[in-house]
Amino acid sequence: MENCVIIVAGGKGLRMGEGLPKQFIPIDGKPVLMRTMEAFYRWDPSIEIILVLPEEHQEYWNMLCRELNCTISHHIVNGGESRFHSVRNGLEYLSEELGISPERKEKGWIAVHDGVRPFPSPEVIANCFSSARQEGNAVPVVPVVDSIRVVADEGNRPVDRSKYYAVQTPQVFHSDILIRAYRREYSPLFTDDASVVEASGEKIHLVPGNRENIKITTPFDLLVAKALCPYSRNSDAD
Amino acid sequence: MENCVIIVAGGKGLRMGEGLPKQFIPIDGKPVLMRTMEAFYRWDPSIEIILVLPEEHQEYWNMLCRELNCTISHHIVNGGESRFHSVRNGLEYLSEELGISPERKEKGWIAVHDGVRPFPSPEVIANCFSSARQEGNAVPVVPVVDSIRVVADEGNRPVDRSKYYAVQTPQVFHSDILIRAYRREYSPLFTDDASVVEASGEKIHLVPGNRENIKITTPFDLLVAKALCPYSRNSDAD
Repeated sequence: MENCVIIVAGGKGLRMGEGLPKQFIPIDGKPVLMRTMEAFYRWDPSIEIILVLPEEHQEYWNMLCRELNCTISHHIVNGGESRFHSVRNGLEYLSEELGISPERKEKGWIAVHDGVRPFPSPEVIANCFSSARQEGNAVPVVPVVDSIRVVADEGNRPVDRSKYYAVQTPQVFHSDILIRAYRREYSPLFTDDASVVEASGEKIHLVPGNRENIKITTPFDLLVAKALCPYSRNSDAD
Repeated sequence: MENCVIIVAGGKGLRMGEGLPKQFIPIDGKPVLMRTMEAFYRWDPSIEIILVLPEEHQEYWNMLCRELNCTISHHIVNGGESRFHSVRNGLEYLSEELGISPERKEKGWIAVHDGVRPFPSPEVIANCFSSARQEGNAVPVVPVVDSIRVVADEGNRPVDRSKYYAVQTPQVFHSDILIRAYRREYSPLFTDDASVVEASGEKIHLVPGNRENIKITTPFDLLVAKALCPYSRNSDAD
């Protein structure tokens, strides 16, 4: 049983209002995506890393790896037209190249993780994999800290925030469950892997995430990420 | 018609795991609470500022104001046993000392704001007051950016996050509406001023907040706040 992670970095980064797609923006000298990859490598140096990247970004990425001397072994797979299709491309690589599929003998535990989420803690990664081994899947969440309101046709009303959780990645699944779930047709309702797996009838098992495990999608997030970076050379200076 | 703001800093800061209550922790050399007060003063130097502080913190606060040469005029009112009671104490001061009450001729526009929320933007403050003048009240919100799940007895399920908003302050109300609403009995369901006013039958009017307007309740928030501080001496250095 192999540990695998599909790191999805399909985004073109248009939301940042910058030329550089957000996965390539450096945080303390190292691109976001490289920090993401390192988080998993640090937890298990033998983990199978599949990086899903748009074809037009791959040359630039390889150049970054050479320049920054990144020697972490990983396989690059072409991005698809949506996150769903990108993950499916990653799963196809696992089936065809590594033989991990419901029809073959090889099984694995597959994490799917956002490329722009560089700070999952080692504890959270470990706990997602170990919980998935027990429950079939594991999805990390953190409590919603703000008061929240829901807006409906008839106006807006407060909701009991203690029942709400913000969803993170890595979302970890038994390979059979994930690969079968991704054989269904794409629906725009699929916002993450949990929703795809849920659509095939599985119950989702929630585990604790870590607050620093933010998704970098705006300049605001990038500012926060730079402050949070646990590997920053300046992290002891404050 | 006067502009007033009740800044609620009743918290004892136990959640920070530090000796110093969180409203007094310095961000780039200036206590959180002083930055909060300055945000309103900067928008309208004639705004009536009422600061609600636990009695045991007042001497320390006055010392900080002397030491840091803070000359912003403000009135200090004793904190109550909950946020509700603290706001009510602030409203009593407005009624009794300034004559702002439904029974007297003086009216005002009253903002209630969290003391540990130092970065409401000038635009958001201005818009909250001007929208409240048109609608009777204004509550700033920002879209929820994370995927969210709701947990119920039968398990957990994803919700459509586009309908959910995180609630901020300042929440601004016509004085008659707010003072009447706070005459009702306390309920633990009152999580903010909007919920108190809503309980008296008013519809809540949502307006855009600003992402930097975070509430500092944990060490994580403090780290983020230090990175965000728009008045930091180092803000151009990055």
